[in-house]
Amino acid sequence: MYKSISSTQNPFIKHLLQLKEKSRLRKKRGEFLIEGKRELSLAIKGSFKIKSVLFFPDLFSETEAKVLSQHNIEIIEISKDVFQKLAHRDTTEGIIAVVEVKHNKLEDLTLKSKNPLILVAEAPEKPGNIGALLRTADAANIDAVIIANPKSDLYNPNIIRSSVGCVFTTEIAIASSKEAIDFLQNYNFNIFSAILQESEPYYTQDYTLPTAIVVGTEATGLTKEWRDTATQNINIPMQGIIDSMNVSVAAGILIFEAKRQRDFK
Amino acid sequence: MYKSISSTQNPFIKHLLQLKEKSRLRKKRGEFLIEGKRELSLAIKGSFKIKSVLFFPDLFSETEAKVLSQHNIEIIEISKDVFQKLAHRDTTEGIIAVVEVKHNKLEDLTLKSKNPLILVAEAPEKPGNIGALLRTADAANIDAVIIANPKSDLYNPNIIRSSVGCVFTTEIAIASSKEAIDFLQNYNFNIFSAILQESEPYYTQDYTLPTAIVVGTEATGLTKEWRDTATQNINIPMQGIIDSMNVSVAAGILIFEAKRQRDFK
Repeated sequence: MYKSISSTQNPFIKHLLQLKEKSRLRKKRGEFLIEGKRELSLAIKGSFKIKSVLFFPDLFSETEAKVLSQHNIEIIEISKDVFQKLAHRDTTEGIIAVVEVKHNKLEDLTLKSKNPLILVAEAPEKPGNIGALLRTADAANIDAVIIANPKSDLYNPNIIRSSVGCVFTTEIAIASSKEAIDFLQNYNFNIFSAILQESEPYYTQDYTLPTAIVVGTEATGLTKEWRDTATQNINIPMQGIIDSMNVSVAAGILIFEAKRQRDFK
Repeated sequence: MYKSISSTQNPFIKHLLQLKEKSRLRKKRGEFLIEGKRELSLAIKGSFKIKSVLFFPDLFSETEAKVLSQHNIEIIEISKDVFQKLAHRDTTEGIIAVVEVKHNKLEDLTLKSKNPLILVAEAPEKPGNIGALLRTADAANIDAVIIANPKSDLYNPNIIRSSVGCVFTTEIAIASSKEAIDFLQNYNFNIFSAILQESEPYYTQDYTLPTAIVVGTEATGLTKEWRDTATQNINIPMQGIIDSMNVSVAAGILIFEAKRQRDFK
């Protein structure tokens, strides 16, 4: 019925293994891997193009495979060996999919609100932090996340996992900081750059107009261009001994203050 | 001058290696390891008792060792081999210390404010989340963190690291949920339990009186006893597709709403 692969030495399987590990290959081929029904259904919901679905029949039913094949997706039956080699986790329900990357261009962003709220994260590093930022963006239903000067590729398996799938459902653009600033200024956004020095406490500002909240890295903060072009630099007052906050916590506090001011509408 | 250990086979060094790995041994012996000058100085600032300091002379100066020895701390010179075996990280400045655990009892908490603000985290699991919670608690200068029904020991190297030292400077108590509830009720705290169901939006509540904000695990939320004894159950409105938020981000949003209502005083 389906094309079937039982050897871990099969060239296509070897290619997929590399795709899992190598960011450069994901970029070059424009594709990445996902695991499990939930991730697959979120990717479909997020209008990602599914290229192939590999299933291990003991964990995934023929009926389910048939449903997928009706969507013009290539379906490949794989052996237990191949599945175990490809799967990152134990409990991924016998399914792996090859998905086409989105290019996440600024010009493709769809901003749904009249007064959009955007989070900009400059050069975020840890996959766990990027995942947490995307979860916050989803929960707050903000219009978009812009990742400026990215350090890692968005379709890294650790980002997909730590975002619990929010990487598929959030409007995301990737750009240089310069391009992001141009975009935000073109669309008359108020830019609030989170910076400790020479800034106003975040809760004194008005976030009800088109608003971009911009956070930098924990180690070095935001680059000068964000400080210089901000409508207003803002800070979260630090009143402790160590004065250090996780970047995704800081972004959550700022985004939800904006949401509160907008009455969560 | 100092006691000196050059063999990785030395029984004391073997004991320290086990201390690094084994939570049960840390508990039994009432001691744990820290690395680097910054952690050491924060532990001293936090009134932790330092039992021994081990230093690798190429990275740590004699003068610095002398200063420490004036504080009645046992000083041991170690070889490069021993240092590399003990050190978790590369850049820890040639210093490892053996520190006495605190017992983190509820009755030992010192609440500095008239209207204290406490964070309760029930059964937090990931060291990274616990570290982020403690960083937020430090930054907001709240009165205390109570860890209820703990899943891991506080002096786990990953918690120390991810807290960037806030584990030493924050007032922390560890207790069962029952004990924590009794304590909070005795002291007339308003208890706000973060729960999605049957709860009010967090921003509609008044957090200016003695306030405990209680968060549960991402997987299972809070136990029934917190829901039943809450002054008010509260939620962060979830407006997205996936509706999932990192627990330390959620705690940050709630704590800083309380801080905002208190004018950051």
